[in-house]
Amino acid sequence: MELDYDPRKRFGAHLAALRRKRGISQERLALESGLARSYLSGVERGLRNIALVNICILAQALDMQPSELLDFRTGA
Amino acid sequence: MELDYDPRKRFGAHLAALRRKRGISQERLALESGLARSYLSGVERGLRNIALVNICILAQALDMQPSELLDFRTGA
Repeated sequence: MELDYDPRKRFGAHLAALRRKRGISQERLALESGLARSYLSGVERGLRNIALVNICILAQALDMQPSELLDFRTGA
Repeated sequence: MELDYDPRKRFGAHLAALRRKRGISQERLALESGLARSYLSGVERGLRNIALVNICILAQALDMQPSELLDFRTGA
Protein backbone atom coordinates (compact mmCIF):
# COMPACT_ATOMS: atom_id res chain seq x y z
CA MET A 1 0.00 0.00 0.00
CA GLU A 2 1.36 3.43 -1.01
CA LEU A 3 0.85 6.48 1.18
CA ASP A 4 0.42 9.85 -0.53
CA TYR A 5 2.45 11.61 2.18
CA ASP A 6 5.77 10.95 3.97
CA PRO A 7 5.00 10.03 7.60
CA ARG A 8 8.64 10.69 8.60
CA LYS A 9 8.43 14.32 7.43
CA ARG A 10 4.99 14.87 9.04
CA PHE A 11 6.10 13.23 12.33
CA GLY A 12 9.38 15.16 12.39
CA ALA A 13 7.77 18.55 11.84
CA HIS A 14 5.05 17.75 14.39
CA LEU A 15 7.60 16.62 17.02
CA ALA A 16 9.71 19.75 16.54
CA ALA A 17 6.61 21.95 16.91
CA LEU A 18 5.48 20.13 20.08
CA ARG A 19 8.99 20.38 21.57
CA ARG A 20 9.31 24.11 20.78
CA LYS A 21 5.84 24.83 22.13
CA ARG A 22 7.12 23.46 25.44
CA GLY A 23 10.28 25.55 25.21
CA ILE A 24 12.48 22.43 25.25
CA SER A 25 15.74 22.31 23.29
CA GLN A 26 16.75 19.26 21.27
CA GLU A 27 19.63 18.78 23.74
CA ARG A 28 17.27 18.69 26.71
CA LEU A 29 14.80 16.33 25.03
CA ALA A 30 17.70 14.06 24.08
CA LEU A 31 18.92 14.13 27.69
CA GLU A 32 15.49 13.45 29.19
CA SER A 33 14.57 10.72 26.72
CA GLY A 34 17.97 9.08 26.68
CA LEU A 35 17.99 9.16 22.88
CA ALA A 36 21.04 10.52 21.03
CA ARG A 37 20.74 14.16 19.96
CA SER A 38 21.94 13.28 16.44
CA TYR A 39 19.17 10.64 16.19
CA LEU A 40 16.61 13.17 17.44
CA SER A 41 17.82 15.72 14.90
CA GLY A 42 17.41 13.13 12.12
CA VAL A 43 13.88 12.31 13.33
CA GLU A 44 12.87 15.98 13.36
CA ARG A 45 14.30 16.46 9.83
CA GLY A 46 12.10 13.61 8.61
CA LEU A 47 15.03 11.32 7.85
CA ARG A 48 14.21 8.54 10.31
CA ASN A 49 11.48 5.90 10.34
CA ILE A 50 11.16 6.01 14.14
CA ALA A 51 9.83 2.88 15.82
CA LEU A 52 7.03 2.46 18.35
CA VAL A 53 9.14 2.15 21.52
CA ASN A 54 11.06 5.38 20.76
CA ILE A 55 7.78 7.17 19.95
CA CYS A 56 6.50 6.16 23.41
CA ILE A 57 9.79 7.19 25.08
CA LEU A 58 9.59 10.64 23.43
CA ALA A 59 5.93 10.95 24.45
CA GLN A 60 6.83 10.17 28.07
CA ALA A 61 9.75 12.63 27.98
CA LEU A 62 7.36 15.33 26.71
CA ASP A 63 4.73 14.24 29.27
CA MET A 64 2.26 13.48 26.47
CA GLN A 65 0.30 10.48 25.18
CA PRO A 66 1.89 8.55 22.30
CA SER A 67 -1.21 9.20 20.17
CA GLU A 68 -0.60 12.96 20.43
CA LEU A 69 2.77 12.54 18.72
CA LEU A 70 0.99 10.99 15.74
CA ASP A 71 -1.67 13.68 15.63
CA PHE A 72 -0.37 15.12 12.37
CA ARG A 73 -2.26 15.69 9.15
CA THR A 74 -2.29 12.67 6.88
CA GLY A 75 -3.03 12.70 3.16
CA ALA A 76 -1.63 14.80 0.35
CA MET B 1 14.45 6.48 29.80
CA GLU B 2 12.63 3.36 30.97
CA LEU B 3 8.94 2.84 30.25
CA ASP B 4 6.88 0.96 32.84
CA TYR B 5 4.86 -0.80 30.12
CA ASP B 6 5.68 -2.64 26.87
CA PRO B 7 4.43 -0.51 23.97
CA ARG B 8 4.68 -3.51 21.61
CA LYS B 9 2.22 -5.53 23.70
CA ARG B 10 -0.17 -2.55 24.14
CA PHE B 11 -0.03 -1.68 20.42
CA GLY B 12 -0.49 -5.30 19.36
CA ALA B 13 -3.53 -5.89 21.55
CA HIS B 14 -5.03 -2.54 20.50
CA LEU B 15 -4.48 -3.27 16.78
CA ALA B 16 -6.08 -6.72 17.07
CA ALA B 17 -9.09 -5.23 18.86
CA LEU B 18 -9.52 -2.47 16.24
CA ARG B 19 -9.23 -5.02 13.40
CA ARG B 20 -11.76 -7.42 14.99
CA LYS B 21 -14.18 -4.57 15.71
CA ARG B 22 -14.19 -3.95 11.95
CA GLY B 23 -14.71 -7.66 11.24
CA ILE B 24 -11.45 -7.84 9.28
CA SER B 25 -9.30 -10.98 9.32
CA GLN B 26 -5.51 -10.81 9.63
CA GLU B 27 -5.31 -12.20 6.09
CA ARG B 28 -7.46 -9.40 4.72
CA LEU B 29 -5.61 -6.65 6.62
CA ALA B 30 -2.32 -8.12 5.36
CA LEU B 31 -3.67 -8.12 1.80
CA GLU B 32 -5.02 -4.56 2.00
CA SER B 33 -1.95 -3.12 3.70
CA GLY B 34 0.58 -5.04 1.64
CA LEU B 35 2.32 -6.20 4.83
CA ALA B 36 3.15 -9.90 5.29
CA ARG B 37 0.61 -11.81 7.37
CA SER B 38 3.40 -13.34 9.48
CA TYR B 39 4.70 -9.82 10.24
CA LEU B 40 1.20 -8.68 11.15
CA SER B 41 0.73 -11.70 13.42
CA GLY B 42 4.01 -10.85 15.17
CA VAL B 43 2.90 -7.22 15.63
CA GLU B 44 -0.44 -8.28 17.14
CA ARG B 45 1.33 -10.69 19.51
CA GLY B 46 3.48 -7.81 20.77
CA LEU B 47 6.70 -9.22 19.35
CA ARG B 48 7.53 -6.42 16.88
CA ASN B 49 8.69 -2.87 17.40
CA ILE B 50 6.69 -1.58 14.44
CA ALA B 51 7.97 1.58 12.77
CA LEU B 52 6.15 4.79 11.88
CA VAL B 53 5.62 4.16 8.15
CA ASN B 54 4.03 0.74 8.79
CA ILE B 55 1.83 2.24 11.54
CA CYS B 56 0.57 4.79 8.99
CA ILE B 57 0.07 2.08 6.33
CA LEU B 58 -2.02 0.01 8.78
CA ALA B 59 -4.02 3.11 9.77
CA GLN B 60 -4.79 3.80 6.11
CA ALA B 61 -5.74 0.16 5.49
CA LEU B 62 -8.14 0.36 8.47
CA ASP B 63 -9.38 3.77 7.28
CA MET B 64 -8.28 5.38 10.55
CA GLN B 65 -5.92 8.11 11.69
CA PRO B 66 -2.43 6.97 12.78
CA SER B 67 -3.00 8.56 16.22
CA GLU B 68 -5.97 6.22 16.78
CA LEU B 69 -3.65 3.20 16.48
CA LEU B 70 -1.59 4.58 19.36
CA ASP B 71 -4.63 5.33 21.51
CA PHE B 72 -3.79 2.61 24.00
CA ARG B 73 -3.37 2.93 27.75
CA THR B 74 0.16 3.86 28.78
CA GLY B 75 1.66 3.38 32.23
CA ALA B 76 1.73 0.36 34.51
